[in-house]
Amino acid sequence: MSTTNRICKLFGIQYPIIQAGMVWCSGWRLASAVSNAGGLGIIGAGSMHPEMLRSHIQKCRAATGRPFAVNVPLLYPEMEAIMGLLVEEGVKIVFTSAGNPNTWTKWLKDQGITVVHVVSNTKFALKAEAAGVDAIVAEGFEAGGHNGREETTTLCLIPLVRDAVQIPLIAAGGIGDGRAMLACMALGAEAVQVGTRFATAAESSAHADFKARILAAKEGDTELVMKQTVPVRLLKNPFYHQIKQAELKGATPEELQSILGRGRAKKGMLEGDLEEGELEIGQVAAMLDHIEPAAHIVADIWDGYLAAKKKLVEG
Amino acid sequence: MSTTNRICKLFGIQYPIIQAGMVWCSGWRLASAVSNAGGLGIIGAGSMHPEMLRSHIQKCRAATGRPFAVNVPLLYPEMEAIMGLLVEEGVKIVFTSAGNPNTWTKWLKDQGITVVHVVSNTKFALKAEAAGVDAIVAEGFEAGGHNGREETTTLCLIPLVRDAVQIPLIAAGGIGDGRAMLACMALGAEAVQVGTRFATAAESSAHADFKARILAAKEGDTELVMKQTVPVRLLKNPFYHQIKQAELKGATPEELQSILGRGRAKKGMLEGDLEEGELEIGQVAAMLDHIEPAAHIVADIWDGYLAAKKKLVEG
Repeated sequence: MSTTNRICKLFGIQYPIIQAGMVWCSGWRLASAVSNAGGLGIIGAGSMHPEMLRSHIQKCRAATGRPFAVNVPLLYPEMEAIMGLLVEEGVKIVFTSAGNPNTWTKWLKDQGITVVHVVSNTKFALKAEAAGVDAIVAEGFEAGGHNGREETTTLCLIPLVRDAVQIPLIAAGGIGDGRAMLACMALGAEAVQVGTRFATAAESSAHADFKARILAAKEGDTELVMKQTVPVRLLKNPFYHQIKQAELKGATPEELQSILGRGRAKKGMLEGDLEEGELEIGQVAAMLDHIEPAAHIVADIWDGYLAAKKKLVEG
Repeated sequence: MSTTNRICKLFGIQYPIIQAGMVWCSGWRLASAVSNAGGLGIIGAGSMHPEMLRSHIQKCRAATGRPFAVNVPLLYPEMEAIMGLLVEEGVKIVFTSAGNPNTWTKWLKDQGITVVHVVSNTKFALKAEAAGVDAIVAEGFEAGGHNGREETTTLCLIPLVRDAVQIPLIAAGGIGDGRAMLACMALGAEAVQVGTRFATAAESSAHADFKARILAAKEGDTELVMKQTVPVRLLKNPFYHQIKQAELKGATPEELQSILGRGRAKKGMLEGDLEEGELEIGQVAAMLDHIEPAAHIVADIWDGYLAAKKKLVEG
């Protein structure tokens, strides 16, 4: 596929399968495992202080000779330090999210870095294209973690963005197997970004209890909440119910922020506090039932994609 | 396609494209136009008294020699009268929704009627299969009108239901063109049910002002509200904002019901009151920009499906 697929060519990867940068899940172990398997692994900088991120980049490079990327939420407080060390460490591909693509794209491109921006609507896709990014990730409502206010699902979002921009397009949100990958390619995407399924990989740094909770999740076990502040899709645990009850009683954004406090995601996702922690995950959780190495996930999605394509053509 | 596709065989239709039964939109004119174009037209009984429904069935039969169906929300108050007249009028295909598939499926099957049930989760898909329905419509979060509480999107829902049931599966929610149809077929669906785009068809009985408002809608212009009572996806108009503000202030289900009152959907969708009316529509509204005959819509979706399939195979 790498000879014709624009995303494979852009990143120099074998399969157009990208592991999403995820707080508390995607350190160097997961990213290098995905890259070694022929996809694109991403270190999620959102849960790392700059020197922690530097260490993960160095370990990732030691663990794989293949391309990998770093995902940087642009609302991070130490952004200049982060961007400086990405250049110092020779990172070749940066995914930016949660911020204005105009702020850093030109500077990163001037350093020779490939830049991808994550959006959840057409307006920001156009803005990112105008800012000069090399590709876009369009992420739908079903995705885990922080999410767009329009609530546009991947099925509706990808054709809208495809018709709006010319640059390569990566679909995200609701993609856990090869059938969903094929569906997104049918909609006009050129690659898929997979979060939830990789969060449960053996190499994910998520706490074992959080992984087990993801695997136990059924349909309807996640919900997008805190829409008045920063929308986030959570597993329904006691912390979620606390937020939800406050919302149903008409809580203000300040009251919700006060319930949220600080460090909730770390508590839930890294430390495994399934009661008080914030457990960010996508709807794909309902499809998953076992932990496996990241390389198996890459191979299964790719093999499933080819099998679904064969069935679609012959059916 | 009709020789191998189970849905085409089941209904005796040319293309696996089904026009959703929709309150105030899908009377005999729309249903017969879709059926004459090779899809399956559906008369939406949800907004009709029994004798009105009888008249639509008779007019539909006079307007097309091809198969058509009637959609019956099972919570309708005059259900025995409705079911009786469906048999009297010789209706061959009935889509049931919003109720227990055990209540009427066996009785309808005993009358020689093909029965399809609409679900929004795997649990009810299994229940419908056990009740003996001939096929299932699985409808995702992005769909217009009333909607499942789990908020599972079509991209996530179709593979889950496909893996759970053996009977033929129709995808609904977020399908407005041939690319989305192909995506749903890739996920394991055997046909698609399209609502929003047919609501804007020339033959739809929706008010011209409502159609114009749908065509003007952009991403994020619909939202699923009233989740504490009967979840419904609405266009954001003054009535929506009244409901939304009440929800944000912690309104009880009774207070929301009191704001809703009676006849809101008729007022908005049939009478064209864009301020005070309830305007039920799906996220696909953001993709639409012109009114066209239903036959053009069927042909465009089918041609688009074939073109997208060719591109996917060759790309």
